[in-house]
Amino acid sequence: MPTLDPVELVISMPEEERRSWLRTLAPDDAADLIQSAPKTQQPALLDALDPWPRSEVSALLAYKEDEAGGLMSPRFARLRPEMGIDEAIAYLRRQAGQVETIYYAYVLSEEQRLLGVVSLRHLLSAPRDRLVRHVMRTRYQSASEQDRGEAVAKLMSDYRLLAIPVVNRAGIMQGIVTIDDAMQVQRENADQQLQRVGGMEALDGPYLATSFGRMIRKRAGWLSALFLGEMLTATAMGFFEQEIAKAVVLALFIPLIISSGGNSGSQAATLIIRAMALGEIKARDVFQVLRRECAAGLALGSVLCVIGMVRILLWHRLWGTYGEQFARVSLTVGASLIGVVLWGTLAGATLPLILRACRVDPATASAPAVATLVDVSGLVIYFSVAKIFFLGIV
Amino acid sequence: MPTLDPVELVISMPEEERRSWLRTLAPDDAADLIQSAPKTQQPALLDALDPWPRSEVSALLAYKEDEAGGLMSPRFARLRPEMGIDEAIAYLRRQAGQVETIYYAYVLSEEQRLLGVVSLRHLLSAPRDRLVRHVMRTRYQSASEQDRGEAVAKLMSDYRLLAIPVVNRAGIMQGIVTIDDAMQVQRENADQQLQRVGGMEALDGPYLATSFGRMIRKRAGWLSALFLGEMLTATAMGFFEQEIAKAVVLALFIPLIISSGGNSGSQAATLIIRAMALGEIKARDVFQVLRRECAAGLALGSVLCVIGMVRILLWHRLWGTYGEQFARVSLTVGASLIGVVLWGTLAGATLPLILRACRVDPATASAPAVATLVDVSGLVIYFSVAKIFFLGIV
Repeated sequence: MPTLDPVELVISMPEEERRSWLRTLAPDDAADLIQSAPKTQQPALLDALDPWPRSEVSALLAYKEDEAGGLMSPRFARLRPEMGIDEAIAYLRRQAGQVETIYYAYVLSEEQRLLGVVSLRHLLSAPRDRLVRHVMRTRYQSASEQDRGEAVAKLMSDYRLLAIPVVNRAGIMQGIVTIDDAMQVQRENADQQLQRVGGMEALDGPYLATSFGRMIRKRAGWLSALFLGEMLTATAMGFFEQEIAKAVVLALFIPLIISSGGNSGSQAATLIIRAMALGEIKARDVFQVLRRECAAGLALGSVLCVIGMVRILLWHRLWGTYGEQFARVSLTVGASLIGVVLWGTLAGATLPLILRACRVDPATASAPAVATLVDVSGLVIYFSVAKIFFLGIV
Repeated sequence: MPTLDPVELVISMPEEERRSWLRTLAPDDAADLIQSAPKTQQPALLDALDPWPRSEVSALLAYKEDEAGGLMSPRFARLRPEMGIDEAIAYLRRQAGQVETIYYAYVLSEEQRLLGVVSLRHLLSAPRDRLVRHVMRTRYQSASEQDRGEAVAKLMSDYRLLAIPVVNRAGIMQGIVTIDDAMQVQRENADQQLQRVGGMEALDGPYLATSFGRMIRKRAGWLSALFLGEMLTATAMGFFEQEIAKAVVLALFIPLIISSGGNSGSQAATLIIRAMALGEIKARDVFQVLRRECAAGLALGSVLCVIGMVRILLWHRLWGTYGEQFARVSLTVGASLIGVVLWGTLAGATLPLILRACRVDPATASAPAVATLVDVSGLVIYFSVAKIFFLGIV
């Protein structure tokens, strides 16, 4: 069951067929398709459209694919405030074939300023002697063109909207985002984020229907990349071979130390990636986020430090596990945990922010990638701390 | 900004207020609310409803919250196949206040069998001299009561539906799931899965608006639990202290080996959790899944084995890094990688399946939990393999 890429399909069509196929698409869907085609093919696809949709689609192409502007359709149902109820219904009835949805209608002033929103359901149950301006809602939710698609989807879900108007700064109506597009954005983002955090590329198909070879390729790529990164740990450990030889007890805590760094890093990264996707963190919040994660890293590191030291002292008291050096071991592990968790948290929180500043998808800073980064530095922190507490011994 | 729990709010209301508040809820929302209340409070809440909605809500309470049956509303717009178009529109207009949506109407036979679906938009633009049965769609998507909420949401998103009918095995219409509920289920599931995979409890609020103390509690809980699990690695390593003392070179690859197991485990777990949430994997598929993951584990382990052995042999050739024992080291690392990745993949795939069989949310088998489990066993595999290749030495 091969998944057909619609872009490839359209590109491979003969010109006539391509033209008639593109003609069936709503302008927002056509813009989506053209946006995901290779840059060299985009002009040809745009040319295949008829003049009027072409100007609409060109306008949409100016927006990013995952912004409200890139998701919206300019074909929405418009009403005038002075229309009567029956007149409005009859008018919507006539527009039914040309607009994205007739279930919400947008009441505009002469200057295309959005005055209010009214649902078809509300129009149908309103007293027939009123005017549109009497029944429209003047307090409504709206999005602006640069809002992130996922944030718009959340707003629509929170307010249970089937469509949301997109207005520019001057209050001029630009288009609507409908729930089907919002839901698709929400699902695609969630899938991508989850699979990145879980350390793989998205399968793009049901598990059992994906061919074995295809699945292995998708999984082996990420796994090999993480493995190559993780190889640096062997290099880093090489520098501390002498120390381990002198105090083998240090080796016992290596997995504990590096996994604590990795877990705190992946936790911070997941939190920040999610908050950025929902538009909760803006560029101006960066320093506040870093201050917060710095404090969080110290607090979380201290919690693990206490648990770790209690565990070592308890085991020593009960079974004498760690010999004479138990105090040094416990101090080394405790101090390293604070350092490693603080570093892991900061690295996990910073990486997505840096990636976004470089215009790379923040979700690339997936948990496993952060964990790999943190593993190597965690080893350096651990053995550096050990050198202090085992002064003269290692 | 404390998040108010609606259940607590309703329980704390005086009876009169509670009654009038519950009265404003649609039956599916009331059922949701009652379902998330403590078991002891449920009868009191149900009693506060009026008789007719109470019987509707009771019927819905028989379903699980995340099944189509638990999400559906019994208040949908019904039409008869022999109605005229205008008659149907007028009828929908009168039903507008009582049903969940009038934008889709369901055409039922006398025995409540679902014959077809028609959208209000389609009715409004249909020729007025036709009957409902001429314009209704007889090929439509539907869900059954036990379908998982997230699978229903995906179906609605794929087919761009605003509502989907739920029918039982006999084809009798039970209710509809509307897009707002489907979208909420999709978002909640995605958030929960992502945060579990990232190793934390869901924040239930925007990042910057969540108080520092609340955030630390949510994060420290998971981090401490993982830390306690990971402590077993120190115990496991304790058993191999002698081996490390004799061949320190073995310690160098510990992080590499255990992270490979952890990454392959979290990859498999993420994949299976996702596929189960979308209903792609049924109980009868378990053996097929395990066979597939067994093969995938072997294939992925072999890839890493080759990369790992090439790296060790290359470093040895270039810098003589691993001394005389380079061949033993390379064989130990290579063989362990196959074992660890195979085991990690199987554990990651099996854990969610076992949890579901025990009626625990499979997403609890989050990537970090799997990684912790796999870390401990990875060490055992690695040192057991080392004992074979370093026979007589360690």
